Amino acid sequence: MVVELVSVGTELLLGNIVNTNTRYLAEKCALLGLSMYHQVVVGDNHDRLAEVVRTALGRADVVIFTGGLGPTEDDITKEVCAEVMGLPLVEDAHTRQRIEEYFRNNIYKRITDNNWKQALVPLGARVLDNDNGTAPGLILEKNGKAAVLLPGPPNELYPLFEEQVSPYLQNLQPEVIRSQMVKICGIGESGVEERLLDLIDGQTNPTIATYAKTGEVHVRVTARAADEQEARKLVKPVVKEIKSRLGDCVYTTREDETLEMAVVRLLHKYGLTVATAESCTGGLIAGRLVNVPGVSDVFREGFVTYSNKAKRKYLDVGKGTLKKYGAVSEQTAKEMAIGGAFASDSDLCIAVTGIAGPDGGGEDKPVGLVYIAAYMKDTVTVEEYRFKGNRQKIREQTVVKALDLLRRSILKHYM
Amino acid sequence: MVVELVSVGTELLLGNIVNTNTRYLAEKCALLGLSMYHQVVVGDNHDRLAEVVRTALGRADVVIFTGGLGPTEDDITKEVCAEVMGLPLVEDAHTRQRIEEYFRNNIYKRITDNNWKQALVPLGARVLDNDNGTAPGLILEKNGKAAVLLPGPPNELYPLFEEQVSPYLQNLQPEVIRSQMVKICGIGESGVEERLLDLIDGQTNPTIATYAKTGEVHVRVTARAADEQEARKLVKPVVKEIKSRLGDCVYTTREDETLEMAVVRLLHKYGLTVATAESCTGGLIAGRLVNVPGVSDVFREGFVTYSNKAKRKYLDVGKGTLKKYGAVSEQTAKEMAIGGAFASDSDLCIAVTGIAGPDGGGEDKPVGLVYIAAYMKDTVTVEEYRFKGNRQKIREQTVVKALDLLRRSILKHYM
Repeated sequence: MVVELVSVGTELLLGNIVNTNTRYLAEKCALLGLSMYHQVVVGDNHDRLAEVVRTALGRADVVIFTGGLGPTEDDITKEVCAEVMGLPLVEDAHTRQRIEEYFRNNIYKRITDNNWKQALVPLGARVLDNDNGTAPGLILEKNGKAAVLLPGPPNELYPLFEEQVSPYLQNLQPEVIRSQMVKICGIGESGVEERLLDLIDGQTNPTIATYAKTGEVHVRVTARAADEQEARKLVKPVVKEIKSRLGDCVYTTREDETLEMAVVRLLHKYGLTVATAESCTGGLIAGRLVNVPGVSDVFREGFVTYSNKAKRKYLDVGKGTLKKYGAVSEQTAKEMAIGGAFASDSDLCIAVTGIAGPDGGGEDKPVGLVYIAAYMKDTVTVEEYRFKGNRQKIREQTVVKALDLLRRSILKHYM
Repeated sequence: MVVELVSVGTELLLGNIVNTNTRYLAEKCALLGLSMYHQVVVGDNHDRLAEVVRTALGRADVVIFTGGLGPTEDDITKEVCAEVMGLPLVEDAHTRQRIEEYFRNNIYKRITDNNWKQALVPLGARVLDNDNGTAPGLILEKNGKAAVLLPGPPNELYPLFEEQVSPYLQNLQPEVIRSQMVKICGIGESGVEERLLDLIDGQTNPTIATYAKTGEVHVRVTARAADEQEARKLVKPVVKEIKSRLGDCVYTTREDETLEMAVVRLLHKYGLTVATAESCTGGLIAGRLVNVPGVSDVFREGFVTYSNKAKRKYLDVGKGTLKKYGAVSEQTAKEMAIGGAFASDSDLCIAVTGIAGPDGGGEDKPVGLVYIAAYMKDTVTVEEYRFKGNRQKIREQTVVKALDLLRRSILKHYM
């Protein structure tokens, strides 16, 4: 089963926006075990779009279109697909009713004449109700080929795909595909591959794929089988083996759990509170923790101590320490962590101090030198890093390593 | 002059990465005044790539390829383009020498036999030296068509494009294109368009295009002319008119200046210091300020006061205030800003308190309710917002509005 993606929109051709829909759909299709050979972007132009539709339907079994379903004259995806596939447009009473309802419930939006254009659907099309906009999704089938038409805005596209298109595509497949994610921190991609080498080399079903993210590695284990239970039975022992080989470098096996969510989960589990004391990251570690809803039970306060004076005032870093070792030093990081925990009366404190550049580096202390300290109930762990990259990159890597040190400090304590 | 973009790489078809190269190149081509009708992604497969090359060269004047220039067997972009265009591959002595030098200077990288494959170039090709990798860029010309081959990694692609491809493309054009950006905050896209309606409607040369970003609107004024001076002369009065209509909503006309850079520039200009006092944004405002190199002269400390206790302890928010009005209130925001400025001995303090959700909202105080207060030399300004969207979106919008309030508070004071 081969799927092709076609994005329709002049804003993509002008480079005004990044095409994140294509990445989303490509990943979802890969997870469903579908093959993809082409992705195309074309503008809102009748002849060029018609040519793209013909080519795509000629070489793929299913073509997923995004964009160009709006109410304006520019929006022609539905019209052109119907024309190429030889399907007349007819008004769909159900869709017309839903459009009326949509405007009744959104008093700030005015209905205009061209909104009724969205109630027209190609004859025989399957209509996919869209709860977040006026353009329904559509599935058109003819001569063993299918065109799936979806609106461009992600908040409309994602739920439509998850709830209605994904099951449709799955049904076209003779096999069921199931996968599980293993998310890893504290070891690089090549290190992960080395430890899993024999598993990866010998893989057929399930397959094992690794993905490098900033400071993290994600491993996806995917199995095909006749039914869901069978597929899960294939995935389970492989995930177990990966976990046993990588130990506490694995921070989660939950698809949607981020590193900060894993940290907050551990804090909740053990009834711990944490404070942050940040210099070069300037609040980004606290910002990541606050990403997690319900963090207020475990995170109450944080310090952004960019100046030496602030490090002394709030974190009680010794004047002598700053003078003797400097602001970017193991000793300062350590005192920041201890001071932050005491000042905030928290069980843990994570502290960072480093040189993010582009200026401020020297021979002794180059740009990229970062100290991360974690205080956890009378124990302080300090790690030294020498990160590569620009200011942004150095700070991003620092945040991930800091969250991971927090995680490992908790695990170590309760081991 | 029509340009087409072709990205080569299976990782894009699998959805492992977002195609940011295409957005970058599309934007650059639009700025050069080139037309683009198609963007295509194809995998590292000989027959399918060859078909895509033939189609693209058939319908466009210039085709820009990215990816597939590496040393492995998978990398076939150069070989397939040369084959389709009927150009034999020959070894380029200059490139061979540069590869040797590259490895001599990168002692951690080992040279392997397949690296020499990268010294082969299609006969007559223009070689574009790549200072950041071993694969040179290439320009192939035949029968009035051109293929531009560029490596996929952005740190190699961007400088190659800027320094060598952009001038090449410009030379193919009879006219010079010049544009200037006007970046706006504190007014929505439709508001901007309304105020510029007659300018936008009547536009031919220069053209005016608006782009909505989170909390910001960017307006690009672009002119075509016989030479650069003439083009600049066309752009200048239009930018001036836009600035006069939008007043201090315009935060910069510098292409690369972000909102936080504009704020830090103003702080430097007037010799001011700022502190942050954050609740729902949890450090993200401080994190944005610290994005700017050299911020340490104007930003020394920030508070993440997520709990009521922390608001009282560090910012001296009154117990009675929290009890009577609640943590998310105009009064609390105001006291946070004053307290943060005094505690840190800063000239300004920006404070936010709000409900980012998904929980914690009520009828009186719904999710999305945010108060932003700015203290500036004895004056406090508080703004109330009711943002839409999820937790992430609400926090992102809050950060932009807070930075903008900071900016406007300074401007107002020195007006």
